[in-house]
Amino acid sequence: MNGITHERAWQRLNELDDILILAHARPDGDAVGSMFALYHALRQIGKNVRCEIKDVPGNMEFLMPAEAFAEFPVRSIVTVDVGDVKLLNDEYKEKYGTHVALSIDHHGTNIMFADETLVDPAAAAASEVLFDLFTLGGVTITKEIAECLYVGLSTDTGCFRFANTTAKTMRTAAALLEAGVDNGALNADIFETKSAAYIAFEKAAMNALTICLGGKCAVLVLTQQMYRDAGITEADTQGIKGLPRMIEGVYAGVTVTEQKDGKIHASVRSKEPVNAAEICAAFGGGGHRYAAGCELSSDRAVAVSSIVAAVEQKLRETGLL
Amino acid sequence: MNGITHERAWQRLNELDDILILAHARPDGDAVGSMFALYHALRQIGKNVRCEIKDVPGNMEFLMPAEAFAEFPVRSIVTVDVGDVKLLNDEYKEKYGTHVALSIDHHGTNIMFADETLVDPAAAAASEVLFDLFTLGGVTITKEIAECLYVGLSTDTGCFRFANTTAKTMRTAAALLEAGVDNGALNADIFETKSAAYIAFEKAAMNALTICLGGKCAVLVLTQQMYRDAGITEADTQGIKGLPRMIEGVYAGVTVTEQKDGKIHASVRSKEPVNAAEICAAFGGGGHRYAAGCELSSDRAVAVSSIVAAVEQKLRETGLL
Repeated sequence: MNGITHERAWQRLNELDDILILAHARPDGDAVGSMFALYHALRQIGKNVRCEIKDVPGNMEFLMPAEAFAEFPVRSIVTVDVGDVKLLNDEYKEKYGTHVALSIDHHGTNIMFADETLVDPAAAAASEVLFDLFTLGGVTITKEIAECLYVGLSTDTGCFRFANTTAKTMRTAAALLEAGVDNGALNADIFETKSAAYIAFEKAAMNALTICLGGKCAVLVLTQQMYRDAGITEADTQGIKGLPRMIEGVYAGVTVTEQKDGKIHASVRSKEPVNAAEICAAFGGGGHRYAAGCELSSDRAVAVSSIVAAVEQKLRETGLL
Repeated sequence: MNGITHERAWQRLNELDDILILAHARPDGDAVGSMFALYHALRQIGKNVRCEIKDVPGNMEFLMPAEAFAEFPVRSIVTVDVGDVKLLNDEYKEKYGTHVALSIDHHGTNIMFADETLVDPAAAAASEVLFDLFTLGGVTITKEIAECLYVGLSTDTGCFRFANTTAKTMRTAAALLEAGVDNGALNADIFETKSAAYIAFEKAAMNALTICLGGKCAVLVLTQQMYRDAGITEADTQGIKGLPRMIEGVYAGVTVTEQKDGKIHASVRSKEPVNAAEICAAFGGGGHRYAAGCELSSDRAVAVSSIVAAVEQKLRETGLL
């Protein structure tokens, strides 16, 4: 066990220099926000520091200062929001993965791949861990640091909507607003902007949505053709999988996705008393009570009818049908 | 001017008894939440109190205790979240509108229709004003009071997303979470549940959405037929009007709505440097810089082409085309 305290993590950051900060591949707001918040904080305490990152979502590029990509030989590596070295992209993993001095994270599943790891699983985001660390270290929460941390906090909590949002998360956000974050404009950019490709895909998805079993089940079928037609990847449309369960009266929302290799994946999201993991277990899959998945190797139409049959059986068992 | 302090408002509540609480017609989460939060608080200090309200959204009915609708002769009336007596529904306005002892509100536009008015325009919601009042009065924030206030705060701020969310709003929410609000479940119900009718309407709306002027303008045309087909009213679909402006690269999002009386209404939402009010002014309408509206008496197709022509001209003037 190499988990350390906030005090030790702050001490370690002070000992290190010529630092490279890395975050996980396919970075989300918490990865990007945490990376540049830490960059600014380390600059503030006089460190030579730089970042490497790829595929930053367009609406978060404003958080990236050009000078964070200066080139110099690295002596220490710090990761943020990385629970497993596998989650670094391949290039960084190969180049840096075995030499991480410090990992700052909020995933309870962190595999402790770094020399030392500060992990707070109660934190909604790595940005929340960093805020605590900065407070401890006396870092001035400048507007730019606050913006980075706010993006991290807000994106990892669905803008303070999800169950991982705690009283402490809200107080942290309050402090960031006081530091000058323009939350209205920032949230409009991040949470209320959709690409034309996403809109096209969403439209196709709405048309592909069906409600069945007396309104208690909804099924969304996503095909490779739909991704191609809209010009978008599955990775950029994860949010749509929540749609079937959003419908009032639906106890089991099923999203059937045709993968690139032709395999059929089903994601089941349920509400009490329906157990999604039990439905998926019948197909060799698994997951949590309200969110589970399974692979269905048969063709698409057969896959849909077999998963709907499994939902129907579960609804009957629980007395909902 | 009959604006009063929190201290005076709390004193007044203590003086009153046999109290009826009212909120505005077509109540939203803040109206419902504020009403029942105040109900519980007044019960806590030993008052005889009841509520009258109609058309509470289904997902907020759980906030309404049956005993809040006891019948007894009323001696004092308190309104929450009501900026103008006109906003009471007709029956209540006629019966009670001229006898309101105390109005507790957060609208800077409150017309001071009550004998005394506590209004805090800096508060994101009437629920935020009530939280301050309860704190001052030493009211115990029970789980049921916290749930009511949380629903008020979260719905008036788009779940803490809109610009009216302040550091104080976030700290208030933190205190409510500590009082036992199950924010994950509650937000899933309120922000992530759509009726089948809404889904049907949204699907039709997505199909009716067009992007034009090189991707800088998006137009959504909503017809009475679409409302009828989906079995939903315009009032229940206000949110959809934000859709055109959400699209990346769009500077002017136009929603053209066919009214019941056949008139055509256009809502224009814009982004810098496009001035929506100027576009609408050409048709005798008005509004704010980024959100304006106008009536177009011609037929639907003509209406759409004339408003798009006005947007095109504005995009040319501002150098965007």
